[in-house]
Amino acid sequence: MAEHSVNFGKTISKLLEEKKYQTLKDVLITMNGADIAAMFEDLDEDRTPLLFRLLPKELAAETFTELGPELQEHLISGFSDRELREVVSELYVDDAADLVEEMPAGVVKRILAQADPEMRKEINEILRYPENSAGSIMTTEYVSLRPSMTVAEAITRIRRTGVDKETIYTCYVTEERKILGTVSVKDLLLTIDDDTPVSEIMDENVIFVTTLTDQEEVAQMLSKYNFLALPVVDNDQRMVGIVTFDDAMDVLVEETTEDIEKMAGMLPSEKTYLRSSPFDLFKHRIPWLMLLMVSATFTGMIITGFENKLAAQVVLTAFIPMLMDTGGNSGSQASVTVIRALSLGELELNDLPGVVWKEIQTAVLCGVALASLCFCKIMLFDRMLLGNSSITVMTAATVCFTMALTVLIAKMVGCILPMLAKRIGFDPAVMASPFITTIVDALSLLVYFAIASALLFPK
Amino acid sequence: MAEHSVNFGKTISKLLEEKKYQTLKDVLITMNGADIAAMFEDLDEDRTPLLFRLLPKELAAETFTELGPELQEHLISGFSDRELREVVSELYVDDAADLVEEMPAGVVKRILAQADPEMRKEINEILRYPENSAGSIMTTEYVSLRPSMTVAEAITRIRRTGVDKETIYTCYVTEERKILGTVSVKDLLLTIDDDTPVSEIMDENVIFVTTLTDQEEVAQMLSKYNFLALPVVDNDQRMVGIVTFDDAMDVLVEETTEDIEKMAGMLPSEKTYLRSSPFDLFKHRIPWLMLLMVSATFTGMIITGFENKLAAQVVLTAFIPMLMDTGGNSGSQASVTVIRALSLGELELNDLPGVVWKEIQTAVLCGVALASLCFCKIMLFDRMLLGNSSITVMTAATVCFTMALTVLIAKMVGCILPMLAKRIGFDPAVMASPFITTIVDALSLLVYFAIASALLFPK
Repeated sequence: MAEHSVNFGKTISKLLEEKKYQTLKDVLITMNGADIAAMFEDLDEDRTPLLFRLLPKELAAETFTELGPELQEHLISGFSDRELREVVSELYVDDAADLVEEMPAGVVKRILAQADPEMRKEINEILRYPENSAGSIMTTEYVSLRPSMTVAEAITRIRRTGVDKETIYTCYVTEERKILGTVSVKDLLLTIDDDTPVSEIMDENVIFVTTLTDQEEVAQMLSKYNFLALPVVDNDQRMVGIVTFDDAMDVLVEETTEDIEKMAGMLPSEKTYLRSSPFDLFKHRIPWLMLLMVSATFTGMIITGFENKLAAQVVLTAFIPMLMDTGGNSGSQASVTVIRALSLGELELNDLPGVVWKEIQTAVLCGVALASLCFCKIMLFDRMLLGNSSITVMTAATVCFTMALTVLIAKMVGCILPMLAKRIGFDPAVMASPFITTIVDALSLLVYFAIASALLFPK
Repeated sequence: MAEHSVNFGKTISKLLEEKKYQTLKDVLITMNGADIAAMFEDLDEDRTPLLFRLLPKELAAETFTELGPELQEHLISGFSDRELREVVSELYVDDAADLVEEMPAGVVKRILAQADPEMRKEINEILRYPENSAGSIMTTEYVSLRPSMTVAEAITRIRRTGVDKETIYTCYVTEERKILGTVSVKDLLLTIDDDTPVSEIMDENVIFVTTLTDQEEVAQMLSKYNFLALPVVDNDQRMVGIVTFDDAMDVLVEETTEDIEKMAGMLPSEKTYLRSSPFDLFKHRIPWLMLLMVSATFTGMIITGFENKLAAQVVLTAFIPMLMDTGGNSGSQASVTVIRALSLGELELNDLPGVVWKEIQTAVLCGVALASLCFCKIMLFDRMLLGNSSITVMTAATVCFTMALTVLIAKMVGCILPMLAKRIGFDPAVMASPFITTIVDALSLLVYFAIASALLFPK
């Protein structure tokens, strides 16, 4: 898709150079806002204002919403006040609020000055809510109906007021801003008798969220119920807005990216990779790297404590990386599975005993399989093929026992830590590979040296 | 949410024991299909058929669709043919096709026998398409309009035929099954003149997918364009169905889970964690564990080759885990970032040089910071505080040079491998932490021993 739009960008550039504005206009209006925005991002920044002015009002607003903040700022800086007013008045309130949140103070002042008073009030309302809450991603524009309206009246109302609403398909039946029920346009259209009151066909089982509900929970609810929108109520149970499915899809993608970043030992970033400078990347990556490096002091101390015996049996050192990696991999398999299940709501905290028991059984199967393979590998490959005669059956046994025990420990640490983190209110995603690996490393070395002491250095 | 439904399950169980069927019915009809299904999953399996029979037809179908395959099979086995027919006739075609795909052959036979001929034909059509293609997740029920219809005629048609359609909000204007344009119900309702022909208000810029388009691409397109549905066409460009946003959201979640599983070195599984047996988990986890364990042979061989020098300077061994872990963590930060950006379409293959250059700069920043911290830690903590006099400035320098170089190598391997994998048609997600760690381990040991040879064992 993106490659296609890059090539398309060349055509546009060419038309622009040749000043074929009518052709450009004809081409642009066949395109979708999201595609035009993608093309703009690839173009020379200085060419975008001219192109943007060729777009009809609605398409311009649609395109503007899809642009990155840098380009939005660049365009706004070139707008006259009248142009800015035109664009802002076409934006949906939630998109306008997003814009205000991302622009520097000077630009925000200009935007708010050009917004009409009603919109300014609504933008300010949305901005009051904490980041990542339902309030911060909702839109205040929705269709509300009275319970006493007939189906015909309801349809008339939608036709009269719907033009500014992000979705008209779910309507909310309210009285003094309390939600009594929901009616879909489908229900309205499919009701044969036009005189039926809305209260008779509305669904009274209203599922709603509050302004402070976490956006990830909102997205998961929308996805679970397959709704187009969810109503948002304030502390007094009064309806203040709706969250629509398209914003929920964006939230799902964003929150997953955050989880993945945390799982790889990074601080989550809101910028895309291409927009992040090396220094941005550095800032997000270095804290965990430093923390984990310093925690590796423990593994170093464990090895130092065993130094003399290691000097006598240097062959043991050769197996340290394999044991540590296998432990780390086993642990992160368990932790990542559990973290994902927790974040999808498939696992609850009270499932912990069941999870631990399942991981123990899995670990036994994995441990036995790995230890057997490892034993064969050591005896056949390392000892016979490579002719490393310092490897004895006892050495192989030491490594394989350690292997099996390490896998068991790793799987248990891997499943328990994320659930404990959740229990004490931490984000389980932090308890993924890097963290688990560091702990498992230390434990596996302790096991290794304990078994080696028993089998290879009997008193 | 889930906890809430568990408690609610107790109330239901109690009412069931007391045989208060009317109360149960009254309670159930206030609930949503997804919630009833969640409650059923927590209940004793044998109680579900009785409860299910209390549900009104439409709610029963909605609930049935949301159930897991085990419980669906259990319910079907208790249905009379008439009951089965009633449920099947209420299902949307795509849900019916999903059901047929998941049930054992005997059950499928019964289902198809009870489906009416039209539905049977459509189910079979959907099942013809390859797994994970747009064809396999589409539904064949959509609203089609003729270009010559007026707005009033279009609305009448929707009101007459809409009841069975999963979405009526996007209508497709077709002629001999070729798509000419799309019209939303919003456009229809907001057009003031009822006599306007549909062809005048339709959007001719139709974005569509083919039956073979990958489901992940379909989901990303729906999310990008914020559409409720995307039309699916066959090889002859004839419209055969639509994919709706709710299925797209499910696909996004599933595909991300798959990516995360692959990134943690597991084969992706379609079963949820709680439904997977330890043997299932074992089967999905052991292949990578074995492969990675065997590849650790290289690191072992590298250490063995350096054995004599290590025996002379055992203190070097103590830093191996720290160097390997830091390398592994640095590499997986880069690889996971790149993999995610690739899967979100933020990065293209031709961005590779830019990505490598950015990672080099980031690596230099991280490497210098880590090496400096590491030097202080070794000299102040390991040497002075722990009094380990075998650590010299040269030892610390060896470790810190290695550290900086390892980070550089790790970040480069981490960003290049996923992009190469994509280039040759592999899934980049496989090139994540476990794989990168194994490669970086070997490289970091080679660097370590090379630097140690130069600084500590001059000829």
